[in-house]
Amino acid sequence: MVADYYSEENHGAHETLDLGNFALEMGETLRDCKLKYKTHGKLNQNKDNAILFPHMWSGTSASMEMFIGEGRPLDPEKYFIILPGQFGNGISSSPSNTPPPHDRGAFPNITIGDDVRAQYELVHTHLGIDSLQLVLGWSMGAQQTYEWAVRYPDMVKRAAPFGGTAKVTGHNSLWVKSHEDALKSDPNFNNGFYSNQSDCHVGLRRHSQLWGVMGLCQAFYKKEVWKDIGFSSLADFQHGFWDNYFLPMDPNNLICMGWKWRHGDVSKHTNGDLEAALKRIQALTYVVAFSDDMAFPESDCEYEQKMIPNSKFFTINTLWAHFGMFCVSDDDKNQIDAVISKLLNA
Amino acid sequence: MVADYYSEENHGAHETLDLGNFALEMGETLRDCKLKYKTHGKLNQNKDNAILFPHMWSGTSASMEMFIGEGRPLDPEKYFIILPGQFGNGISSSPSNTPPPHDRGAFPNITIGDDVRAQYELVHTHLGIDSLQLVLGWSMGAQQTYEWAVRYPDMVKRAAPFGGTAKVTGHNSLWVKSHEDALKSDPNFNNGFYSNQSDCHVGLRRHSQLWGVMGLCQAFYKKEVWKDIGFSSLADFQHGFWDNYFLPMDPNNLICMGWKWRHGDVSKHTNGDLEAALKRIQALTYVVAFSDDMAFPESDCEYEQKMIPNSKFFTINTLWAHFGMFCVSDDDKNQIDAVISKLLNA
Repeated sequence: MVADYYSEENHGAHETLDLGNFALEMGETLRDCKLKYKTHGKLNQNKDNAILFPHMWSGTSASMEMFIGEGRPLDPEKYFIILPGQFGNGISSSPSNTPPPHDRGAFPNITIGDDVRAQYELVHTHLGIDSLQLVLGWSMGAQQTYEWAVRYPDMVKRAAPFGGTAKVTGHNSLWVKSHEDALKSDPNFNNGFYSNQSDCHVGLRRHSQLWGVMGLCQAFYKKEVWKDIGFSSLADFQHGFWDNYFLPMDPNNLICMGWKWRHGDVSKHTNGDLEAALKRIQALTYVVAFSDDMAFPESDCEYEQKMIPNSKFFTINTLWAHFGMFCVSDDDKNQIDAVISKLLNA
Repeated sequence: MVADYYSEENHGAHETLDLGNFALEMGETLRDCKLKYKTHGKLNQNKDNAILFPHMWSGTSASMEMFIGEGRPLDPEKYFIILPGQFGNGISSSPSNTPPPHDRGAFPNITIGDDVRAQYELVHTHLGIDSLQLVLGWSMGAQQTYEWAVRYPDMVKRAAPFGGTAKVTGHNSLWVKSHEDALKSDPNFNNGFYSNQSDCHVGLRRHSQLWGVMGLCQAFYKKEVWKDIGFSSLADFQHGFWDNYFLPMDPNNLICMGWKWRHGDVSKHTNGDLEAALKRIQALTYVVAFSDDMAFPESDCEYEQKMIPNSKFFTINTLWAHFGMFCVSDDDKNQIDAVISKLLNA
């Protein structure tokens, strides 16, 4: 049973690109493969006003809509903004919505490269766009942004990876593996062949706790920032914020996206030479980190930025660390908008 | 069955203090309660050359012996050094060695205060010592150091808490809860009533992975420090270092010590007023943090140091972060010795 959570009622109407038999980088072929996406604004006649904005792990195309609005940098009056749904997000082809033999625990491993190649089919082949004004995204959206800029360098004029790396770090991959293992630890997981996602709520809760540990930062807890958004205690925050966020989701979907995340590495294009891969990037690139991000520390982001020819490094200062992109505070939203605006005007 | 791991063959001969029926702070009474300990050096006639050195979570008295040696600051020719075994360490009274009704999953919750009160029985009542030249420890040993300095302020002349806090932080408690939950997630855990600790190796491994994520720091992985100690890959390090360390241990023992850790809070003595508790400390106190310690960040340690009347703050600079105290590198050992030496000579 597909969880209701992934319905259009929750995430809005999507358009569909049928990819047919889509050959995956790891060797399997996904039959009747679908890329679901949303758009805002209109593609102009020259087809030169497009922006691509892939979403983060656990999110959907709808998650990025909070950054779009009249008068904001991502203005639909000016730009044609494409929000592709990554594979495994529960709306595009995913463990939760694919029939046998690739259903549930048998859904094949997907790579960031698979996502980006599918997005290329949408952007280039289907929509006829040769050049993107901007590709941006945070966390796994940043991984996809880097993959775009390295794989299709002449199509990406500007790039803004927020809180993410071009090559996953050892520490980061270990953490993502630990939350995959927490999901799989559910007594009902059954190699991914559970009937309802809610059967695996114990694993979802265990996994949610690890997001509490590593998703924010020590100062967030020290300053009890959860009080600002109406939670009465740390326990109340853990359950009311993290558990509530993850409990409706499908464990196989999260694991599929997590596998993709922990294998993200643009240096696959250059025999493991990260510098050579990043030197391919032609886009004006703003690498943006979040202060005290435990998963993607500023130092890891800046390390890569220094290898990108035409690039600058920025930090969003926020107690929400990696989750600055949730824009819980207006200050976070304003800092993020300012970076996007500066880049679009450069 | 008690795991062989906790044998004297592995940890050396211990002395025993019989505490009889020991009333615990949480309300239960532990019958035939035993404090096991080791000592180095000789107590002088004035009984004024004693140092107390409680150990960290997952360790035993033997774990601290690496800091003791002729010509080093903790010199057994000069000092009488007492290494008490905390409850739950598998050697003092613990889930793994206590008969019914307090065996295994029924072992009562223990507090840092219980450990310190038992150590007071040893130091003061049994050995007749009125004043300690130094109490020191790292991680949970630091918690016990703080508890000593706040609870028995006139007995502690000098205190050196390394990489630990007087009051557990929200973030830290969440992390400790997550590794308790990983241990309990083992399919054979059976509420703690498994027969052999090795039946629960899956939970031990899950838990071990979380130590890989949070016990070190991002830079450790970025610089692949594991190569320096002979591991061939990150996976090899995770299994060869962390899994090998934890797999022989008893999950109930680790959970017992973890519960104690995440409830550590000296402000229990002052109705929740941390500053009032820390202001009780009479000892000259050196608060020592490890650089990039993700579990006990410098800022959290320094925050408390500023409330301690006669205190200084130090940082040990090491890529091993919280595990600088393992002294894998001589540089870490030398930095730690230098701080202890400075304090003992002050």
